[in-house]
Amino acid sequence: MREVAIIGVGQTKFGELWDQNLRDIFAEAALKAMEDAKIDKIDSIYVGAMSGGLYNHQEHLASLMADYIGQSGAAGARVEAACSSGGQAARIGYMEVASGLSDFVLVGGVEKMWDTDDSTFVLATAADQEYEAYNGVTFPGLYAMMAQVYMQRYGLTREELAAVPIKNHKHGKNNPYAQYPFEIDLKAVLNSAPVADPLRLLDCSPITDGAAAIILAPLEIARKFTDKPVKIRGIGAATGPIALHDHKDLAKIDSVRISAEKAYKFANVSPSDIDFAEVHDCFSIAEIIVAEELGFFDYGTAGKAIAEGQATYGGKLVINPSGGLKSKGHPVGATGVAQLIEATLQLQGRAGKRQIENARLGLTQNMGGSGGSSVVHILEAI
Amino acid sequence: MREVAIIGVGQTKFGELWDQNLRDIFAEAALKAMEDAKIDKIDSIYVGAMSGGLYNHQEHLASLMADYIGQSGAAGARVEAACSSGGQAARIGYMEVASGLSDFVLVGGVEKMWDTDDSTFVLATAADQEYEAYNGVTFPGLYAMMAQVYMQRYGLTREELAAVPIKNHKHGKNNPYAQYPFEIDLKAVLNSAPVADPLRLLDCSPITDGAAAIILAPLEIARKFTDKPVKIRGIGAATGPIALHDHKDLAKIDSVRISAEKAYKFANVSPSDIDFAEVHDCFSIAEIIVAEELGFFDYGTAGKAIAEGQATYGGKLVINPSGGLKSKGHPVGATGVAQLIEATLQLQGRAGKRQIENARLGLTQNMGGSGGSSVVHILEAI
Repeated sequence: MREVAIIGVGQTKFGELWDQNLRDIFAEAALKAMEDAKIDKIDSIYVGAMSGGLYNHQEHLASLMADYIGQSGAAGARVEAACSSGGQAARIGYMEVASGLSDFVLVGGVEKMWDTDDSTFVLATAADQEYEAYNGVTFPGLYAMMAQVYMQRYGLTREELAAVPIKNHKHGKNNPYAQYPFEIDLKAVLNSAPVADPLRLLDCSPITDGAAAIILAPLEIARKFTDKPVKIRGIGAATGPIALHDHKDLAKIDSVRISAEKAYKFANVSPSDIDFAEVHDCFSIAEIIVAEELGFFDYGTAGKAIAEGQATYGGKLVINPSGGLKSKGHPVGATGVAQLIEATLQLQGRAGKRQIENARLGLTQNMGGSGGSSVVHILEAI
Repeated sequence: MREVAIIGVGQTKFGELWDQNLRDIFAEAALKAMEDAKIDKIDSIYVGAMSGGLYNHQEHLASLMADYIGQSGAAGARVEAACSSGGQAARIGYMEVASGLSDFVLVGGVEKMWDTDDSTFVLATAADQEYEAYNGVTFPGLYAMMAQVYMQRYGLTREELAAVPIKNHKHGKNNPYAQYPFEIDLKAVLNSAPVADPLRLLDCSPITDGAAAIILAPLEIARKFTDKPVKIRGIGAATGPIALHDHKDLAKIDSVRISAEKAYKFANVSPSDIDFAEVHDCFSIAEIIVAEELGFFDYGTAGKAIAEGQATYGGKLVINPSGGLKSKGHPVGATGVAQLIEATLQLQGRAGKRQIENARLGLTQNMGGSGGSSVVHILEAI
């Protein structure tokens, strides 16, 4: 199996992009990535997108996007695993280069969520339609149930839970691509509108338009295209039960643990080797549970550790230096690719005011639904 | 790159499956394939499906289906490239085994098209939403335009065009999984309802519920699981312009030619080596154009050759022994996988009354939209 590197990255501003359409934003990110990699031709394209059908009445995105960036003839397909679509697309791009089938693969992610007036309905199609969505449960409610169990069992306070979005907005204010690049304080979180108890508006990632793209190539030729290729040292993916009621423990997410175990084994590293991580903080409670399943903190301790500053600059490791889904925004299909971009920029020393000193090993974790899918990448500066 | 084999296949009856839901039919096909391969655990699952969102309000199908077949924890994602979703999923499964990342990959395809009352709208999301679908053009109209150009340029008659569905129904009557397993005659085609001139109802593939699944494994261990593994000798995929108005020639489909060239080169064979092919006859004219782009007949001659019996038993090669999309049915996401199943059964000598004598090398071609995507597999009996 060949080793694989990221040789270029590109993304749009995340936010409400009313004056660009779906193909516009994808092309902007994709062409930036190709320019960054100094290539003008790709062998293959994978487009991570959750629901072009319901959001934009447009399926068949690989054909459309290859055409609009002048690459018709390239192989490719759209990849979907709900909010982990972007990360899953990257894993497939990795396999294509690793297998030797192709040299230059563009992996993009895109979602234009403001094109519909009922994004909550669309997002709920990532849950079990017949047992959850049909009965009215949507994702804020599902994650609220997880938060209730976690807080009751481990004694996490409402104030400690708020530390997650407060930290991520503090990081995100330095991200020029973030949807909400400003700080929020405890009072703002606690006074924001209740969504599903205990979660309030500022515990929830937003509705976002955005696109992100990376270029993958064999590591052995990567230095021809960039002085600082980033090696994908490990990958791991796992499905889990799509319905929350099938989780053995509502305060855990098995798919995250399994995908991480696969990635750590693949990369031959352990959680303590990781300098920083971009994780799937779709809701405040998600970052806490995920940080535990990734092995960064013991079960029941991540919430307090984050509140104590262990997941920011100067702490044990930096979690979500980009601002995470909460501050950067969460265009669902693009999120996993945007995580890989942040990791790449950090490992290349291109992260500006967000730069983590001596960042050598980064991890990304991208999740679908309430844990129905998870995909982990481990990236290394070389 | 490791060599890859198909070691098991399974499918549902194609048709109007009112008493089974989306997960039921996928699980039926997947569990049949696992039983056929004599395995009880998979490493990864890919689900080809065009629009779970619009048809069933259910995205996130890899998580759902892994769960329902007792394989939660496996990696995987849904793969979408309109009507070529199944074939594209198989190509990705191939890469996963070829790269050495996994040994046992389940590739399934599924679509439950009768769950909506507006399948034509859903299918049109495979076309260019902003330039085609929004203005009212749907696929029968797009393929009718291709037929108009082809017939005018090459002098193909309306009667000769009818030879495609007549042949495919003759094949399909021997397929126990076919939606319409009966013969039709010239009078029936010519008297069927006009859809988009010159295409009539019996020129168009039907709306279908159905699922299909195959198991991929490294060729080197395939004989542990089956006496007759089928080797995937070549693969090729290509995108093309999503909008018909961007085709350089309306009587050609570039993506089919490019995907075929890649597959022939990969397999080191030529069109004349192929004993039979399953091709994407979504409309009568499609089989004719595709047969030319695959190199089986010169441009402008395939229609007459098919009418003269060159694409059935005893002819140059057998095209669509399964009955094709027309007679077997076309559950869009499942079609590409079902093509691979027919090729496998033929190469294993398990095709019953449809069996082609001395079949050694088969080809499958699966298309998305009006040629926005095409994927070709070349399979070999070993």
